[in-house]
Amino acid sequence: MNNDEFRELGHQFIDWVADYRASLPLFPVMSAAKPGAIRAKLPKTPPLKSGGLGDILKDLDATVMPGITHWNHPGFFAYFPSNTSYASILADIVASGLGVQGMSWQTSPAATEVEEVVMDWLRQMLGLSGAFTGVIHDTASTATLCALICAREKTSNFSQTRNGLQGGASKLVVYASDQSHSSIEKGALLAGFGKANLRLIETDKDHALRVDKLLAAIKEDVAMGKLPCALVACIGTTATTAVDPLKQLTDIAQKYRLWLHVDAAMAGSAMILPECRWLWEGIEAADSMVLNPHKWLGTGFDLSAYYVKDPQHLIRVMGTNPSYLRTAQDDEVKNFRDWGIPLGRRFRSLKLWFVLRDQGIEGLQARLRRDIANAGWLKDQVDQAPDWERMAPVPLQTLCLRHVPKGMKDEALLRAHNMAITEAINQSGRAHLTSAILKGKKVIRVSIGAESTERKDVEALWAQLRDVAGKF
Amino acid sequence: MNNDEFRELGHQFIDWVADYRASLPLFPVMSAAKPGAIRAKLPKTPPLKSGGLGDILKDLDATVMPGITHWNHPGFFAYFPSNTSYASILADIVASGLGVQGMSWQTSPAATEVEEVVMDWLRQMLGLSGAFTGVIHDTASTATLCALICAREKTSNFSQTRNGLQGGASKLVVYASDQSHSSIEKGALLAGFGKANLRLIETDKDHALRVDKLLAAIKEDVAMGKLPCALVACIGTTATTAVDPLKQLTDIAQKYRLWLHVDAAMAGSAMILPECRWLWEGIEAADSMVLNPHKWLGTGFDLSAYYVKDPQHLIRVMGTNPSYLRTAQDDEVKNFRDWGIPLGRRFRSLKLWFVLRDQGIEGLQARLRRDIANAGWLKDQVDQAPDWERMAPVPLQTLCLRHVPKGMKDEALLRAHNMAITEAINQSGRAHLTSAILKGKKVIRVSIGAESTERKDVEALWAQLRDVAGKF
Repeated sequence: MNNDEFRELGHQFIDWVADYRASLPLFPVMSAAKPGAIRAKLPKTPPLKSGGLGDILKDLDATVMPGITHWNHPGFFAYFPSNTSYASILADIVASGLGVQGMSWQTSPAATEVEEVVMDWLRQMLGLSGAFTGVIHDTASTATLCALICAREKTSNFSQTRNGLQGGASKLVVYASDQSHSSIEKGALLAGFGKANLRLIETDKDHALRVDKLLAAIKEDVAMGKLPCALVACIGTTATTAVDPLKQLTDIAQKYRLWLHVDAAMAGSAMILPECRWLWEGIEAADSMVLNPHKWLGTGFDLSAYYVKDPQHLIRVMGTNPSYLRTAQDDEVKNFRDWGIPLGRRFRSLKLWFVLRDQGIEGLQARLRRDIANAGWLKDQVDQAPDWERMAPVPLQTLCLRHVPKGMKDEALLRAHNMAITEAINQSGRAHLTSAILKGKKVIRVSIGAESTERKDVEALWAQLRDVAGKF
Repeated sequence: MNNDEFRELGHQFIDWVADYRASLPLFPVMSAAKPGAIRAKLPKTPPLKSGGLGDILKDLDATVMPGITHWNHPGFFAYFPSNTSYASILADIVASGLGVQGMSWQTSPAATEVEEVVMDWLRQMLGLSGAFTGVIHDTASTATLCALICAREKTSNFSQTRNGLQGGASKLVVYASDQSHSSIEKGALLAGFGKANLRLIETDKDHALRVDKLLAAIKEDVAMGKLPCALVACIGTTATTAVDPLKQLTDIAQKYRLWLHVDAAMAGSAMILPECRWLWEGIEAADSMVLNPHKWLGTGFDLSAYYVKDPQHLIRVMGTNPSYLRTAQDDEVKNFRDWGIPLGRRFRSLKLWFVLRDQGIEGLQARLRRDIANAGWLKDQVDQAPDWERMAPVPLQTLCLRHVPKGMKDEALLRAHNMAITEAINQSGRAHLTSAILKGKKVIRVSIGAESTERKDVEALWAQLRDVAGKF
C-alpha cells in the first residue's frame, strides 16, 4: 500500500467508523454469534499474494460485525462501562501513525513527557496530593501484580536480589476482601505468595471488608509466625461497587507495616467529583493505587493509571539497565520501561490528553454526574417496586437487583427466574446485562455509564425488565 | 465532539498521518529534545472547559513532533525495527472505533476468533506444527514472564495452590545465556525465583550459549540439591542476533525436565523464510515460544505472538473464573483473559489480519529477504575495509562493528572513539544508531529493517560512518 492508497483507504475507514457510531443503536447490543461461527467464515490458510486489503471493509461488515458485542451501545449495561470516545480514537490514529516506541525517554522524549504531564493532570483532577506519581499500565490486573510484587520486595528486604521467595522460612501474607476482583488473587498467585498465604476476608452486609475479621486474621497470622505483607483495599468492588473502609484500613496498614494498595479500577474515575471523595477518605496513606480511565472516562482501552508514592522503589523492583538500552540522559529522565512489566510501550498518553482537551474537567464531571443520577433514578424505581429486591447499596452507577415474584422463596427457583430474565433481555438485542453471585444469591447487575446512555435508555431498560419479568 | 465533527477531524488526522509518512525522510531521525523540553511546553494544569481539540494538530506539530524519534524513518538503524505499516494503522482505527473488549469470548466473539485464526495463520507461516497454539501478548517481556511462571508451576506441581514459593526447601533454577535479553532476568526476579537461582551461562565467541557450561551448571545445581526448572534459549539475541544451539538444548531440557522457552522476539519473524529455519532447528520440542510481529513484520506495537504446547497448563496457571465473568459458552470457547496477565484485551489481531491481507506471505518474505541482503552487503563492506572490525556473525539483519584507527589499541580509547562516531551520526539527524557492550568491548550496532529502508539508505549510512570516522 502506498501513501496515496493509505490516504484514500484511511478516509474510507474514518467514514466507516463514523457511520458505525451513528448507527450504533440499531445493532443488537450483545453478539448472537455461535461459538466458531466467525472462525468458520475466515480462510484456514494465510493469503499468499499481496493486495488483499481493498475489500476489507466489506469483510469487516460480513465477517467481524456479527461477532461484536457493542460496548459503546446506549443499551450496554453489562460488566462495566468501557468506551472509546471520538477524541480517544483520534489520539490512537496519531499513536499508530507515528508508530513510536516509548520504552525509554530517548526512544521518543515526547512519549515520556506527555505521559508525565497528563498523569499529573489526572492526579490533580482526582484531588490527590503531589506525593503520588503516575504511570500508565495496560490494565488494573497488571498494575495490581506490580503492586503485590513491590510489596513482596519491600517486606522481604529485596529477596529478589537473593533467593527470591525460595528456601526461606518466611511466609508473606496478602489480605483483601472476598469481594475483591479476581486479579487480586491472580496477582498474589503469580507473584508466588501461594493461595495458602492469601486471606480473602469476609465482608459485611454491604459487601465491604470487615475490619474486625481482618484484624483477627492478621493477629492469627502473626501468632503463627507469618509476616503480613500487603493489604488491597477495594474502592468500588466489581460486583456491587462496594467500598472498603479505607480510613480504618490505613491505620491497620500502618500498624502492621502492610503495603496498602488501593484498587479503584472502576470507582476511581468518580473521584474527579469532589462530592464523591469521601468514598476514599484516607487515600493519601496508600502506597499504590490504580484506576482505569478506560472504564469511566472515555479513554479507549488500554489505559490504566497507576499511582505510587515511592517511584524509586518501583524502579528498583522493575528496572533493568542492559548496555543496549543505556542512554546519555538516563540520570535526568524517566525511563518508563522500568516502571512496569513490559519493555516496549505505546504512546498511550495521547488518548488521555485528547480526551481531557475535548471534554475538559467540567465535561467529564457532567457525564459522571449524569450516570450517577441515572443510577439513583433506577434505584428509586427498584425500591418502590413491590416485586423487586435491591441487593446492595448504590454508591455510584452499579445496581444489583432481582425479581422476586410473590410467593417465590426457593433460592434455586429465584436464581433460574432471574437468569431467565437476563437471558431474555440479552437475546432481545435492546440491552445487555450480566450477573453476579452475592453471598450465594444470583443477582442481575446493571452497570450504567456508557457514554451514549441517557435517562431514556435507563427508563427503557427498567420498562423491559418489568415487562420480561411479568412474562415468566 | 459529535459525529460530524469526528468525521471531519478524522479526515484531517488521516491526512496529517499521510503527510507525516510522506515527509518522514525530512525529519531528523533521533529527537534532539533536551530533557524537560516537551514537558515545559504543556500547561501545568488540566483544561477546565471542553472543546479544546480543534487546534490539536497544530499543538502536535509544535509540541509533540520535536520530541519524536522516528522509528519508521529510512535512516533508523537503532535498537530493532518496529514499524507500524499503513495496513496496521487502518486496523487500529477499526479496533479503536469499535472499542470492543476482548477479555472473554462473549464480550466480542470476533475478537477471540479472529485472533485464533490469524495466530494459526502465523503458525503455518513459521513452519510450526499444529502442536503449537498461539495467543497475543503485548510484549515478549510479558510473554516470557508468563513462560517462567508456567515453568515454576510445572516443576513445583502447582505450588501456587499451596504456599507458592514460600516456606519450602525447594530451589528452582532458571538458565539462560549471558546474552539473553534483560526481560529474562526481570521475569525470573518478578516470578520470585531470586537472582541467586538464575544462571546466566557464558557464551562462545559468537555470543551463543555454551552447552558445556550449561551442563556443568545444571550438574552443580543438582549436586547442591537444587531443582533445574526452566531454560530460555535465545534465537537472535538483542545485541548481535546470536543463535543458541537449540537442537542440543532440547536434549538437555528433555533430560533434566526443564521447561524450554524460546525467545525469538526479533529473529522469529525470519522463520517465514524457509531458508532461515535451520536457525531454530529443534523448535518443535519447545514448551513455549515468543516472537514479535511488531518488530519485523510491520504489525504495529503492541503485538507479541506467544505460542504454547499445552494451553490447558497456561489456563490453569493464569485462569480465574469469578461469577461476574462466567458465561454460558465457557466450556466451548477460548477466554483469552485466562491466557495471560491482563484481564482486558484490545482487538489486536486485526493488525495482523490486515497486514497479512495487505502484504501476503510473499510480500513479507520479499521485505525480509531485502533486509537480510542489505545486511549482507554492509557486512561485506565492513569485512573489506581495513580499519573496521566486525564484532559478531551476521545471521540476519543486525551488525556489530567498530572503527579501529591504525595503531589504536587501548580499549578505552577505542570505546571513546566509537562512541564519538555514534554520537556524531545521531546528531546529524540522517541516521540513528545505538551501541552495545560485547565481552567488555563497546560496539556500534546497526539494526537494518525499517520498512522504508532501502539499499541506498544502507549505502548512505556506510558512507557516513567512514566519513565521520575519518574526521576524528
